[in-house]
Amino acid sequence: AVLLGCGGVGRAVLRIATSGAETSAFSFLAVLDSSGGIICDGDVALVKAVLAHKEAGHSLASFTGHGKQGLPKDDVVAQIKAQSLKFAVIDTTAADTVEELVSFGASAVVLANKKPAADASAENYKKLVSAATFRHESTVGAGTPILATVRRLRAGLDNPTRIEGCMSGTLGFVCSGLDTGKPLSEVVREAKALGYTEPDPRDDLSGTDVQRKALILARSCGLDHLEMKDVPVEPLYPPSMGPENMDVDAFMANLGSLDTDMASRVAAAKERGEVLRYCGTVDVAAGKASVGLVAVKSDSPLGRLQGADNMFVIHSSIYAERPLVLQGAGAGNECTAIGVLADLKEVI
Amino acid sequence: AVLLGCGGVGRAVLRIATSGAETSAFSFLAVLDSSGGIICDGDVALVKAVLAHKEAGHSLASFTGHGKQGLPKDDVVAQIKAQSLKFAVIDTTAADTVEELVSFGASAVVLANKKPAADASAENYKKLVSAATFRHESTVGAGTPILATVRRLRAGLDNPTRIEGCMSGTLGFVCSGLDTGKPLSEVVREAKALGYTEPDPRDDLSGTDVQRKALILARSCGLDHLEMKDVPVEPLYPPSMGPENMDVDAFMANLGSLDTDMASRVAAAKERGEVLRYCGTVDVAAGKASVGLVAVKSDSPLGRLQGADNMFVIHSSIYAERPLVLQGAGAGNECTAIGVLADLKEVI
Repeated sequence: AVLLGCGGVGRAVLRIATSGAETSAFSFLAVLDSSGGIICDGDVALVKAVLAHKEAGHSLASFTGHGKQGLPKDDVVAQIKAQSLKFAVIDTTAADTVEELVSFGASAVVLANKKPAADASAENYKKLVSAATFRHESTVGAGTPILATVRRLRAGLDNPTRIEGCMSGTLGFVCSGLDTGKPLSEVVREAKALGYTEPDPRDDLSGTDVQRKALILARSCGLDHLEMKDVPVEPLYPPSMGPENMDVDAFMANLGSLDTDMASRVAAAKERGEVLRYCGTVDVAAGKASVGLVAVKSDSPLGRLQGADNMFVIHSSIYAERPLVLQGAGAGNECTAIGVLADLKEVI
Repeated sequence: AVLLGCGGVGRAVLRIATSGAETSAFSFLAVLDSSGGIICDGDVALVKAVLAHKEAGHSLASFTGHGKQGLPKDDVVAQIKAQSLKFAVIDTTAADTVEELVSFGASAVVLANKKPAADASAENYKKLVSAATFRHESTVGAGTPILATVRRLRAGLDNPTRIEGCMSGTLGFVCSGLDTGKPLSEVVREAKALGYTEPDPRDDLSGTDVQRKALILARSCGLDHLEMKDVPVEPLYPPSMGPENMDVDAFMANLGSLDTDMASRVAAAKERGEVLRYCGTVDVAAGKASVGLVAVKSDSPLGRLQGADNMFVIHSSIYAERPLVLQGAGAGNECTAIGVLADLKEVI
């Protein structure tokens, strides 16, 4: 495989793939970061040295050792193409690079990066999916095998009709806190203090990450005409408190102004025996997807979900009354890397 | 594919694979039941006619139509082998036929039948697994993708360390009933009346079915040296009430004698905030598997499980503190058939 990106997820991929092995189940032709790349030609010792170099905080352009040195990206790509090998490209970057991914001419594409699967237009998405065998498990549920399960159901000719998912650990933590009667401002401050949110909590509270995941899930269910703009999203703060109107400190200071409204929504749900969950919903039958707070029965699988785990509830013609439910960690470099390697194993 | 067995699951496989289609994603070379078989050569209309013939209660030996007629099994097998095609064999029978499965010389074997995967000796099991690409999702969780998930984790180099599973809908129903304080005899009578048990409820209460599933799961985790005798099982009735000592009516009449003991176990668990669940447990690290009633925290995933759904809780080095949890229907011809077709799609 050719690995693009050598950040937290990319390094976990290399670490797990080469752990304790002189040989490996996975062979890396090349590893690239934003500075350049190394042709590895499947040399496990070299891959380990590249990993150590990155772990030490250096860029690949400055790598020397094992008779190899960092090369400009274009040179790496040209050398790989010249070999006319069958290989997979793994994208663990945060770049929006459908054209580049397709340009490799790889026989398979494996994504941990959500952008080529979500921010890409429907047209570019279809180009990506049709150009090579396509796997992208880790873009939605990290290691929780939601896309693999959808693929199995569709392969078995039982198309999902509706999927509801809590697919943000951060917003799961927030909703669990709201369940206990805490004010929104308090649970967001808690989540921020614990490092569960991005440095600007609005990156989570905006719902954009869930919107990306819901779109990817929708496209994997066959709704490949949908674009980000077709997936309505409910941010947990008003536009007046958005990044263009105030900085993070001001946002945190103003959070309390949202407490009363949220508390009354929580209380109204509670009266009906329900709790609020921040869900991505794919209604395959109606050809739609949406993202926002929904009230679910307290004693339903989504209602019982606590903390930062992800959960997916899958309905299909056969799983109509009793849905399939998957629950697992939704984040973490290791979980994500396992999903990437499992995908890779399927396509090599 | 060549389909062995044309009972509830086998017919659901044919029905779903050919539903509404003049062409099909799946091509059937031949369909066999215990009486004989039909060479179908991928003719969808013929497969539909064979299905209708079976739905009407006839055996395949008596089939005529579409220029084909029922043949003895040996003739069907000889004709398939003479074509030297690459094909998969699907076993939906209840026969114990590892040798026969291997003898087809198929490139892949897909099982809904538990016996070749469980009752087979470790040696025969290994023969089966190594002779062809092997898939057997539906032997454990019907359509719940437990084996596919284990395979993904192992492919991603994250071996499961421990799996706990409620994998009997019948015993799940019984345990849910016990939770509410009902006597064992009452919940078993209820389950029998609703048709949730086999005609002789001891076929469920013996735990043998769960023992098979736990063994298959253990073998799929790499414990392929284990045999049925290595998996201790706790039946929910004493040997004195076994089939060799009394008939079904006598067993049902005597059920009440088990109520006091069970009620005190339920009460003892409740005092600790626990409930009883009938689990198969695979301890991969210790190389062991076992089957029986275990007490689990009421607010754990297994503790919250209600009714006849299956649930699997998977721990691995990466899913250590927060396990992966899968929940879904554990039985049903359609769910089982979807699992079979999804397996088949992966290997053809």
